[in-house]
Amino acid sequence: MPKPILYLDAQYKDQARRQLEELSDHYQIKDKKQLNSSDYAQIEIFFGSDLETLAAIYQANDRRLAWIQLDTAGADYLPQAFMADPKVSITTVSGIHAPSIAESIYGYLLGVYHQLFIYHDQQQEKNWHRYEDVKNLTGKKALVYGTGHLASEIAQIGQAFGLDFYGVNTSGRAVEHFKATYTQESVADHIGEMDIIINTLPSTPETKNIFDRSFFNEMKEKSYFINVGRGSAVVEADLQAALEEDKIAGAYLDVFQKEPLTADSPLWETKNLLITPHSSGRVEHFRDDIFKIFYQNYQDYLKGKSLSINLLDKEKGY
Amino acid sequence: MPKPILYLDAQYKDQARRQLEELSDHYQIKDKKQLNSSDYAQIEIFFGSDLETLAAIYQANDRRLAWIQLDTAGADYLPQAFMADPKVSITTVSGIHAPSIAESIYGYLLGVYHQLFIYHDQQQEKNWHRYEDVKNLTGKKALVYGTGHLASEIAQIGQAFGLDFYGVNTSGRAVEHFKATYTQESVADHIGEMDIIINTLPSTPETKNIFDRSFFNEMKEKSYFINVGRGSAVVEADLQAALEEDKIAGAYLDVFQKEPLTADSPLWETKNLLITPHSSGRVEHFRDDIFKIFYQNYQDYLKGKSLSINLLDKEKGY
Repeated sequence: MPKPILYLDAQYKDQARRQLEELSDHYQIKDKKQLNSSDYAQIEIFFGSDLETLAAIYQANDRRLAWIQLDTAGADYLPQAFMADPKVSITTVSGIHAPSIAESIYGYLLGVYHQLFIYHDQQQEKNWHRYEDVKNLTGKKALVYGTGHLASEIAQIGQAFGLDFYGVNTSGRAVEHFKATYTQESVADHIGEMDIIINTLPSTPETKNIFDRSFFNEMKEKSYFINVGRGSAVVEADLQAALEEDKIAGAYLDVFQKEPLTADSPLWETKNLLITPHSSGRVEHFRDDIFKIFYQNYQDYLKGKSLSINLLDKEKGY
Repeated sequence: MPKPILYLDAQYKDQARRQLEELSDHYQIKDKKQLNSSDYAQIEIFFGSDLETLAAIYQANDRRLAWIQLDTAGADYLPQAFMADPKVSITTVSGIHAPSIAESIYGYLLGVYHQLFIYHDQQQEKNWHRYEDVKNLTGKKALVYGTGHLASEIAQIGQAFGLDFYGVNTSGRAVEHFKATYTQESVADHIGEMDIIINTLPSTPETKNIFDRSFFNEMKEKSYFINVGRGSAVVEADLQAALEEDKIAGAYLDVFQKEPLTADSPLWETKNLLITPHSSGRVEHFRDDIFKIFYQNYQDYLKGKSLSINLLDKEKGY
């Protein structure tokens, strides 16, 4: 029987291979171009997210596949067959985007609070004009939908600015860094108290269209709305109306109902809205950070230990 | 002898007067319009920054002036006669701008690190394009000229983002929140290690033109320069050249050699530069925050205690 195969995405070069080979010579390490048709069955470890290769593995008889390390935060695009297969462990790189998303959020908030986008525009006109209407984060109240890894990162940084954080989760259980947490029902009475509302929730049936006209009507005057979760949570026409009618002061959307946002979307021209192209989570040393996760899990795997980073709960799907 | 006068800037209305009157009825409280020519000599406490009134007080014989509470961070515009008068205590509102300036700095840094200004521009073109070149604050090195109140505020917030801070002060003494501190001489070997360099220094003969061509040449490739201290510290033509020649990645100037910056300044069109009109320190509840400082000092003054907030060292001038 041939050596089992460790499938490595082609973006990882010789140095990464050597690091893995130093840990064990039990595997043949191959990338996509090095695979021939009889190899798919021999892949025991898959590191990447190439759906074509995954499909080929699934079609192989007597496959040895035991572990999929995805290089993505989510796993919702995976063939259901793997999700249902109890022999296959799945790990993700969930959380890797959190610091970048948090930084993007504060870049937006500080930019609008201190008029930096306006000064950036005004600079084109060589215009020295001071705007009176500044805001400070200190003492402001921020509500985050979700209290997971990303929400915690956002709240932790915000504390350094003197922001007070409130969270929404399914049970309303207390979470570090949050002054109080609510359920989606019990939060209703507090929407109007918040200066900043941030959605970090994944796309589920429960989160579909929860930010709609009645929600935006409840929001405090001159407050801000941010969506870095999933686009399906926001009724975009309702947000647009809230902005055009000055019901709220501004919004930042990084995710949309349909991506990429097409040129005919009215969102592009909606006032007091910042649009980024699902980019808030981009990481400076992305590939290195992903490899570190795989490398740690690989050490666990070789020792027969349970994988320590981001083992997927297949029932929950995250 | 008439009651001594507490001079209150006219922007403070009845509520502020009532708060002061509740503490003591020892003083007549007057604003500028309520003063007649014989009043200047009777002013014991001056709260404001009106130079006309100050000059009139100085010209009065047998003046009772004992305390000037300026509503500005600096005192360098004060008539020298008051600086030299040992009977007059001077307090400022130094530090009041620090949180706003720190917020503005992070607004700029996160904006450029996550391409938010570029996305803001691209939105006008309805263009969904993702830029690869993002940066994260985590693990970056920042050097601050000055280790006073503002510098500490900047460093403290930066720690939440995982930034490492280094400081420059006259003695090189250690300061909380800074991993190391240098003198202006000993820092020379470390300029090239820094991802971000921030000037917070006041205008003194020692700080004039210290950021010049040779300094920018020492800076790390793709690093950023920020000036929120005083404009006299930067040779603007040299910074402009460093930006146009891509010696550094970007700069943010809030202060300039001459303010307001005139329309013919080449800085307006310098690439990778953000200009704000000496506005980074604007505070949301400015007047309230200033009044709180005066109110605290006033309580000390009434009790004959030394003034607890921002008593000026007249020799140093700050």
